[in-house]
Amino acid sequence: MPTPELAVIGGGQLARMMQQSAIGLGIRVRLLAEGPDVSAAQVVPDHVVGDYTDLDTLRSVVADAPVVTFDHEHVPPEHLRTLQAEGHACRPGPHALLFAQDKGAMRERLTDMGVPCPRHRLVETPADLEEFGFPAVVKTTRGGYDGKGVWVVRSAAEAEEAFASGRALLAEELVDFRRELSALVARSPSGEVRSYPVVESRQADGVCAEVVAPAPDLDPALAEQARELGERVATELDVTGILAVELFETTDGRLLVNELAMRPHNTGHWSIDGAATSQFENHLRGVLDLPLGSTDARSPWAVMVNVLGGAVEDLEAQRAVVLAAEPDVKVHLYGKSVKADRKVGHVTAYGPDLDDVLTRARRAAALFTEGAPHD
Amino acid sequence: MPTPELAVIGGGQLARMMQQSAIGLGIRVRLLAEGPDVSAAQVVPDHVVGDYTDLDTLRSVVADAPVVTFDHEHVPPEHLRTLQAEGHACRPGPHALLFAQDKGAMRERLTDMGVPCPRHRLVETPADLEEFGFPAVVKTTRGGYDGKGVWVVRSAAEAEEAFASGRALLAEELVDFRRELSALVARSPSGEVRSYPVVESRQADGVCAEVVAPAPDLDPALAEQARELGERVATELDVTGILAVELFETTDGRLLVNELAMRPHNTGHWSIDGAATSQFENHLRGVLDLPLGSTDARSPWAVMVNVLGGAVEDLEAQRAVVLAAEPDVKVHLYGKSVKADRKVGHVTAYGPDLDDVLTRARRAAALFTEGAPHD
Repeated sequence: MPTPELAVIGGGQLARMMQQSAIGLGIRVRLLAEGPDVSAAQVVPDHVVGDYTDLDTLRSVVADAPVVTFDHEHVPPEHLRTLQAEGHACRPGPHALLFAQDKGAMRERLTDMGVPCPRHRLVETPADLEEFGFPAVVKTTRGGYDGKGVWVVRSAAEAEEAFASGRALLAEELVDFRRELSALVARSPSGEVRSYPVVESRQADGVCAEVVAPAPDLDPALAEQARELGERVATELDVTGILAVELFETTDGRLLVNELAMRPHNTGHWSIDGAATSQFENHLRGVLDLPLGSTDARSPWAVMVNVLGGAVEDLEAQRAVVLAAEPDVKVHLYGKSVKADRKVGHVTAYGPDLDDVLTRARRAAALFTEGAPHD
Repeated sequence: MPTPELAVIGGGQLARMMQQSAIGLGIRVRLLAEGPDVSAAQVVPDHVVGDYTDLDTLRSVVADAPVVTFDHEHVPPEHLRTLQAEGHACRPGPHALLFAQDKGAMRERLTDMGVPCPRHRLVETPADLEEFGFPAVVKTTRGGYDGKGVWVVRSAAEAEEAFASGRALLAEELVDFRRELSALVARSPSGEVRSYPVVESRQADGVCAEVVAPAPDLDPALAEQARELGERVATELDVTGILAVELFETTDGRLLVNELAMRPHNTGHWSIDGAATSQFENHLRGVLDLPLGSTDARSPWAVMVNVLGGAVEDLEAQRAVVLAAEPDVKVHLYGKSVKADRKVGHVTAYGPDLDDVLTRARRAAALFTEGAPHD
């Protein structure tokens, strides 16, 4: 195989969608995949199957790649520091990734920066939690995602499972929020920063269900505040590639940071079909220190709805049904086998009328998930 | 490797760009590539390296693929008939491909259909050519492309090289044309047909240099005529996937068919960034008999300029220069080594102002080709 320009660690759908953009830009990617037929391994010929927690495996993958980026934030930071010492540019670097890996470190750093966060404290014992007060959201500081590692509790007794996990825990106030927003930013090592329009992210059972771009009826001052906040966090934490800042819009009209992600993010999938430059292309341009592309929307509204594993087993066969019902919804399947509630794809609709766009995207996703039109 | 849904014969840039769309739709592609590192082999893990004129090689590639499509029109028709007899759906089929492979057969069939073509006749001897008259365009009926196998002659003596080629020759009148247009149509085996906006194709040295979508100042009646003509040819010849009908707009305001191509075509590359559904996605949807997507333009103007091999050797390194100059031009590199005048990529700009769009696309392409801005 010829020398790759970029190593991507992790073979999920984010790496798969990066590859679509890499093909256009002529970027040769080498992939570290968790298995021989994971989502991105299906579409990246130059891949190694192995364990991203093993340093020698990482070394063999990045061997002749000057730049390394990631499908997820779980690579051990000490390995990334070793790779950097050995001459590879890890983007984002471990000094930035820390704040996406460790929610305790993230809260401390953002609070130091004066970035508004929910009230929070690290809790080691039920007594600490009693002191913090109820109701509380208790989270493992590391390793949680999509609602996993998160408990909403109204007493120390309800936090038994959390304390039994043996992991470091963070308690946060249960924010009274109107909705969730996401500020997505692309940044390059040269310091160029570009923000996508602020979107609304709608969750079901702690998992992103649909995203509306831009966030409907968002106060322009709040949109500007979200944008500035995203750009400031990206710059001060020295993030490279895509940063997603997930935000609460509180019922009293403030923004509070919920989570950070340092990679292309589910709340940015709409950009593939809805923006001048997709988040995947701008992630690649960012990590390779290429000039970034426009983050402008190409349509007044875009709606992305996740396809979760449901009643339909054969998504490829169902594609014909979906496209017959909604020929102009853009379909993105991840090449994954169907398991209950697993993210196996997404659909995006765009156009001038939000109701129409929402209806089309939801109907297409429901046909993939349930096999029947959503009503 | 799991069972592919589609076999693609030929590993050039058309197959490479099909793969970008296949990734989104979740279509597993198996590729027959001419070499281990050709354009599409770089991005399709499930590929076989071999010779598309060898039946056993073709059989091994299509083995478990229900549908077969093509990067080019050069697979021997007798092999395609064998594959069909063995249960594979070749799309387009050999009965249609014949008219893209053999210009003599194409002229005869279109003329029988009443489709306007340049005056023409098959010529076997210089005497035949004298009888046809001068000036004449002499073409090999098979195997010519991008200006190869075409001679403009003003006497039989000037046709010496053509006759010396030993190939069947077609003589055509030298059409007095204002410009070249292209009518691009997607069609499925179920008979669904969708036309893209008619574009203007500008050639240099017999090779497509740039494409403007839609064709500027085109008489709406001619546009409608081109569209009807494209759809009629696609339907009557039973083309599946993309058909490109290259047309002359004569100085006296008529349309004459120049060439047919039955695959995604250079005059449709603008659709990746400029249309609701790219020609590559609609080719896949067509050949797999999925409902077709909208062929509407997403922007008032789109301009595609080919990147031909020139002074710049390292296109990947030059990418940073191009994107710095034109961050919002969409770059498509084919992973090919640079040779003089070889198509190694293309760029597309879009927007509301044609002059601006043309300027940006040309400047980006010139930076790739010449290493300096176009003036």
